This record gives sequence, structure tokens and C-alpha cells, in this order.
Amino acid sequence: MLYVIGIGPGNEEFFTKEAENILNSVDMIVCYKGYKEYIERFQKEIYVNGMTKEVERVEYALNQAKNKTVALVSNGDATIYGLASLAFELNEKNFEKVEINVVSGITSASICSAILGAPLNHDFSVVSLSDLLTPLEKILKRIICAFESDMILAIYNPLGKKRKEPFLSALEIILDYSKDRNIDYVIGIVKNAGRDKQEYKITTINGILENLDYYMDYIDMSTTLIVGNSNTKIINGKMITPRGYLSKY
Amino acid sequence: MLYVIGIGPGNEEFFTKEAENILNSVDMIVCYKGYKEYIERFQKEIYVNGMTKEVERVEYALNQAKNKTVALVSNGDATIYGLASLAFELNEKNFEKVEINVVSGITSASICSAILGAPLNHDFSVVSLSDLLTPLEKILKRIICAFESDMILAIYNPLGKKRKEPFLSALEIILDYSKDRNIDYVIGIVKNAGRDKQEYKITTINGILENLDYYMDYIDMSTTLIVGNSNTKIINGKMITPRGYLSKY
Ligand SMILES: C[S@@+](CC[C@H](N)C(=O)[O-])C[C@H]1O[C@@H](n2cnc3c(N)ncnc32)[C@H](O)[C@@H]1O
Ligand SMILES: C[S@@+](CC[C@H](N)C(=O)[O-])C[C@H]1O[C@@H](n2cnc3c(N)ncnc32)[C@H](O)[C@@H]1O
Repeated sequence: MLYVIGIGPGNEEFFTKEAENILNSVDMIVCYKGYKEYIERFQKEIYVNGMTKEVERVEYALNQAKNKTVALVSNGDATIYGLASLAFELNEKNFEKVEINVVSGITSASICSAILGAPLNHDFSVVSLSDLLTPLEKILKRIICAFESDMILAIYNPLGKKRKEPFLSALEIILDYSKDRNIDYVIGIVKNAGRDKQEYKITTINGILENLDYYMDYIDMSTTLIVGNSNTKIINGKMITPRGYLSKY
Repeated sequence: MLYVIGIGPGNEEFFTKEAENILNSVDMIVCYKGYKEYIERFQKEIYVNGMTKEVERVEYALNQAKNKTVALVSNGDATIYGLASLAFELNEKNFEKVEINVVSGITSASICSAILGAPLNHDFSVVSLSDLLTPLEKILKRIICAFESDMILAIYNPLGKKRKEPFLSALEIILDYSKDRNIDYVIGIVKNAGRDKQEYKITTINGILENLDYYMDYIDMSTTLIVGNSNTKIINGKMITPRGYLSKY
């Protein structure tokens, strides 16, 4: 039996009871090596490996799960850019019949929204800027579509050490809409959300462009950005997207 | 002090430890009357009211929070179509200086994704079909944009007893893209996710249209739909969107 479990950002207080109970009950835990510190407290047998070793990791977990109860751990939610779909695919491809159960966790967009205030309080899109598995053109089209229809945009995997182009192209798109519509879009940046070194900044597209080197250095692979829609504003230092109650009632 | 807290779908196992601890510590809990059953176990003073009374509910909570610790409870995540932004707005509008803290919960898209398999495993949009606070035209444009850029689409508030038009218009848009691209989009429908009466169906746009009366009756205000992208498929009865590992490696 394989559980694919999202544990939220990492710190214990963001685990659901369900995740906590299952992790206490399994025979072993499999995860990316960077997440080991968050699951050591369960004192289980652990198997970890590194980035780009996802297929190997999931195959290992499926294999062990034939006669053990195994938890394959993702951070955030297990389906949102996590390994859940790969587990189902490999199970079928290898003609295995392991029972797979997915267990939700708090995704980064959600935790970052709470930290920033309430930017995600209307229709939104979630887009990853990683072009390892998705053509850049397709990613940028999604960003254009989010702005075209005035959705809030959560950006995952914004910058890698060697992957800067998607981020710069995304900023260009935001700037174009900003000029066209005369809106200085509010942007919230949260780093290490729900972890000990959590920090955040609330700025705007022009704020980022005026200090581009600083932000390119600040933003890393543990950062999520939330770009507001045309109604998003800053209230007492928090980033808020009104749902519309006050204009209606 | 006001906490705006998301409790996930309702059942105890989906509460985070953070939500659980705070709800145990507050002086009183304020929420929509339909959620009372999920927070009675904390044995606190409770204030509830009904739909369209959101402004009154939040004002009551803010008022109490001047000299008590109050939890304003949303289901799912507190910012995603929840009352967090309204709390910040009213706090400012009424010149109050209540400290507001937002606490994330598992949002419906996330829990429904786990129940269906892993449909949310790539870029996605989240759109509410409620046209009470948002013009229908704007909602439909967002759906068009999601399909235009091949994002997965999570639909909240799909149907109300008297609100059928947005849903029918959304189906028309999906059908248009389905014909254009010759893709029978997979659609997952989850009702009462994470509650005792949880049920789900996995079908396609044509499957829904062939039994429209049945689905119009089945889908209610406690239902979330997830419409796949062009790669989403059904594997052993589960709805899966590949992230792309298998085509790459
Ligand atoms: C491979 S994705 C995994 C997403 C995860 N499954 C989720 O639901 O949040 C990695 C990206 O998630 C975001 N992320 C993960 N942990 C984060 C954290 N603690 N703070 C901010 N962003 C985070 C970052 O954008 C990061 O580049
Ligand atoms: C006002 S919105 C609240 C959303 C909530 N804050 C969240 O993050 O999930 C209400 C909509 O959320 C979805 N929803 C809420 N609870 C649900 C459940 N238990 N199962 C399926 N969908 C649910 C439905 O689409 C419903 O119409």
C-alpha cells in the first residue's frame, strides 16, 4: 500500500491530523532529500534521493509498497507539482497493482496567501515557471491568459540557479499589462513559508523592476510569488484582494 | 485579536495542528451556520448566521475581537473565497485596529484532487461560478482563458438552486474546445469531500451532456468540479494529469 502524502510547508503545525496519523502508522517513508528533516521525527526507515531522480524515487516506493506500507512524501500538496500522478502512471506502466492513496496537504499558494494577508481571495491561476517538463511558450501563454482575464496569479518554481529566462519573460508580460492598463500590480513574495526562516515582501511590478538585481538574488527555489489582480491592494502592510462584498452590500 | 481560520472540508482529520491549537485557545468562534457542526467539539461560545450575512458576521467578529480572542472560521482555506479579505477591509473602513491573523486550511481543490487521484498535477486555474459578486461575463472569460492555455480548471460554487446559467454557459465553452480540439475532456465531480457523505464521479464533457438532467440534479453547492487539461486521463478509475516525467525521462 502506497500513500502519497502532502505535508504542507514543513513545520509540524501545518501537518493535517490525517497526514500525521498515517506517517505514524507506515513502515517506511520515501522523499526528496531536502524534506528529510521534516519527517525524521516519525522515526521510520527513510529512503531519500535528489532532484531529477523522481522516477527512480517513485519506482523505489512502489516496489517497497508491494509488501509494506510506504509513505511517499511531497511538500505542500501531493498533487500540486508533486509526485502523485507519477505514482499512478508508473504503477500502470509496470503492470503493478499497488493500492495508491493520496493525502492532501496545505499547498504553498495557500500558506503564502495567509502570510501575505488575503491576496488569493478571488479567481486565480497557479503556474510553475520550471521549463524542465513544460515548454516555456506554454508557460508564458498561461501567464498571458491569467492577466488577460484578470485572475490572481501564484507563481511556483520562480527562479533556478541557472534558470532565469522564464522569470524575466514573466516580468515582461506583467509589465506590458501594467502599462496597458495603468495598474502597478501588487506582488507578494514569500520565502521559506511555514519554516523557521520564513520571510516575505510586498511590492509591485515597478518595485521589482527598479531593484531587479536585488530581487533576482532574493527569490529562490523556496519562494512563491503571488501577483494580484486589478483590485488587489495593500491595507496596513498586508496584500488583500477584495471579494466584492463591500461594493455590493 | 482576530484569527481567520480555514478548517479544511470539515472532518477532524483535515484540520492542521495550527488550526486545532488556535481553536482550542480562543474565547469565541464565529462562522456560517452550516459549519457549526465542525467546530462544536471545541466547546467555545459560538456565534453563527446565514448566507448573504457575511458583512454582519465579520463586523460582529471584529467587534468582539477588540477585547477577546476570536476565531472567524471558513471552510477550506480562509482566503480562497473565504472571509479573510473582508475582515481586513472592514477593519480599515471602520477605523478599527484589531490585529488579524490568517490561518491556512486545505482548500476544496486540493482535497478533491486527492480523492479523484491526481488531476491537479499541473498548472491550473480556480474559478467560482457564483455571479453574485462577479459579473458572469468576467467569470466566463476566465474559463475561456483556462482552456485557451490548456490549464486544468477547478470550479467552485458550480450550481445554486436558482443559479443554473453560469454552469450551462461553462459547459458550452468546454464543449466548444472539446469539438475544436477533438478532446473529450475528463471531468471529476466531488460532493461533500472530506465529510461523511463524500462521493465522487469521474466522467467527461460528453458524459455530462448525455446525462445533463442527472448531473444538474447531482451537482450542488457542496460540489467541486475539476476539468482536466489535454493530457489528463483515467488510469484504473482515477483521474490523473501527468506532470511529464515519463515523456521526458
Ligand atoms: C516542486 S514545487 C512543489 C510544490 C508543493 N507540492 C506545493 O503544493 O506547495 C516547488 C515550489 O513550491 C514552492 N514552495 C515549496 N515550499 C515552499 C515554501 N516553504 N515557501 C514558499 N514556497 C514554497 C516554491 O515555489 C517551489 O519552487
Ligand atoms: C464559498 S466557497 C468556499 C471555499 C473554501 N473556502 C475552500 O477553500 O474550499 C464554497 C464552495 O467550495 C466548494 N466546497 C466547499 N466544501 C466542499 C466539500 N466538502 N466538497 C466539495 N466542494 C466543497 C464548493 O464548490 C462550494 O460551492
